[in-house]
Amino acid sequence: MHAITVAEPGGTDQIRWAPVPTPEPGPGEVLVRTQAVGVNRGDILQRQGHYPPPAGVTDVMGLEGLGVIEKLGGGVSGHAAGDQVLALLAGGAYAEYFVAPAEHLLAVPPGIDPIKAAGLVEVAATVVSNFDRVRLSAGETVLIHGGAGGIGSFAIQYAKAIGARVVTTASRKKASYCKGLGADEVIDYASDWEPAVMVATADRGVDVILDIIGAKYLEANVRCLATEGRMVTIGLQKGVKGTLNLAVLLNKRGTITATSLRGRPADQKAAICRRVEEVVWPLLADGTIEPGNQTRVPLEDAARAHELLESGENTGKIVLVAGYSG
Amino acid sequence: MHAITVAEPGGTDQIRWAPVPTPEPGPGEVLVRTQAVGVNRGDILQRQGHYPPPAGVTDVMGLEGLGVIEKLGGGVSGHAAGDQVLALLAGGAYAEYFVAPAEHLLAVPPGIDPIKAAGLVEVAATVVSNFDRVRLSAGETVLIHGGAGGIGSFAIQYAKAIGARVVTTASRKKASYCKGLGADEVIDYASDWEPAVMVATADRGVDVILDIIGAKYLEANVRCLATEGRMVTIGLQKGVKGTLNLAVLLNKRGTITATSLRGRPADQKAAICRRVEEVVWPLLADGTIEPGNQTRVPLEDAARAHELLESGENTGKIVLVAGYSG
Repeated sequence: MHAITVAEPGGTDQIRWAPVPTPEPGPGEVLVRTQAVGVNRGDILQRQGHYPPPAGVTDVMGLEGLGVIEKLGGGVSGHAAGDQVLALLAGGAYAEYFVAPAEHLLAVPPGIDPIKAAGLVEVAATVVSNFDRVRLSAGETVLIHGGAGGIGSFAIQYAKAIGARVVTTASRKKASYCKGLGADEVIDYASDWEPAVMVATADRGVDVILDIIGAKYLEANVRCLATEGRMVTIGLQKGVKGTLNLAVLLNKRGTITATSLRGRPADQKAAICRRVEEVVWPLLADGTIEPGNQTRVPLEDAARAHELLESGENTGKIVLVAGYSG
Repeated sequence: MHAITVAEPGGTDQIRWAPVPTPEPGPGEVLVRTQAVGVNRGDILQRQGHYPPPAGVTDVMGLEGLGVIEKLGGGVSGHAAGDQVLALLAGGAYAEYFVAPAEHLLAVPPGIDPIKAAGLVEVAATVVSNFDRVRLSAGETVLIHGGAGGIGSFAIQYAKAIGARVVTTASRKKASYCKGLGADEVIDYASDWEPAVMVATADRGVDVILDIIGAKYLEANVRCLATEGRMVTIGLQKGVKGTLNLAVLLNKRGTITATSLRGRPADQKAAICRRVEEVVWPLLADGTIEPGNQTRVPLEDAARAHELLESGENTGKIVLVAGYSG
């Protein structure tokens, strides 16, 4: 088969569409013929050499895929060759075939273009597991940084579906996109967003923060927490080492946590996949959550997809599609 | 009545034993004639002007008291004048009489010297509520900073009672005291304690950290967390602004929280008092938890008690006792 490979960690010029051995599904795994692959920021970090795959995982990029089961490994039941499935992966989907643990397969949600769903597995799993982690509840206010991105645009809609009030940061030109997704307040991230968050919450602060920025926003984020507020950091786009004022955190009885999806144990990932099928797929089927904008790029043109994501100019999700001619 | 007052925020030379009006119990409150008062680090911060009482609370120091009910405010049932009670307070116990919300009274635990118990209310409420908050469980390992202090010596024993393994930091000369309380590993806090914690956990790190130090230990604490580890900061003895490496936290899926007891809403404090009666008092009654060393000082000599606590030379708890002649 062919796969996207990276000659040396670095820029998109290192990306090749090259012949590699077709993987074999082990016990509890399936081999899937790729139809579509969601492009994630983690892929770019991996290409640059900053986010190596966990031990035992292929070094081919790709954290989520759509395809047709080609072959079952030993001990797999409930699936059959020819089934169209979605998969949450630790890697491997940037290829004509990928291997997935059967417990990390998800059903294709009814009534939705499957390629749209292929771009939602990773974001849905990320957002649902982290809102669960910080117990976002109806009536609470959540601050979502980067509301126009793949994570952000899903998080806005899912938070609204939970019954939360949504304050989000985005570039000025993407504000109306975020409003259209249901955000109650959109704040220009290039402005001094901290006082704007306090105004939007009548100085109460926010109950939950979903953060993809990291160090650069840490102090302001903590100041924006309400009493008993919880922040979860899931991305480090602007630095890893920040200043934490523990007195501010203590006076609010605040909580900071941080997670990544890829490094979780298999059983946790399986539970997250079940939770996505249970709570997110019905919201997609009934139209509560829109899959959102999607930009499609041929699988073999992954370099172009990365350039587009890195430019920051794209709104919504980028998906690689096998056999796509543009 | 007389109370300990502070002329100007500052040193112990500002402390006076002075006449003040006897307080009146409001609805839901009781007036208590003071028998003993636990001395806490928060009292020293308050004397220095760094920890002002919450709105509506007396500026007399004292976060926990033992005494005899003198008078009931309106609507109080289940208590009677003449009852000996313990109280968790936002302030006021450094006086001949103090007012307490009836729901923040605790029964005197059976079979224990009541003055010993007077020094345990604040530490028990602090430790129980925070171990609950970070869900310390049997079989987990907890790192307790300052194992020989009032909080630390109680936390060691309570963590052991839960079934946790205890690693603690203390000065070298207090190591045997901590061992005697049940600590599995005692590490000299003046040494490079971080690698010693990793050795003590076979490089796994600790599931829970109870921290009273703050900024100075923040980076090392986060590095010492195990996967899914939780730190709770309850004191800021060495600084408030520290460096947080969010990448380290994210790779561990770690959590940092921080709390204080005094600022909590009344209903939370009442629930904590009930939890202390339910889980701690039986452990005192059956000898699982020893009240530990206690140094008694006459109530009117609060300045001496503060000097002793600030010296760092005292082991265990300091208690002010009314009518005590030394």
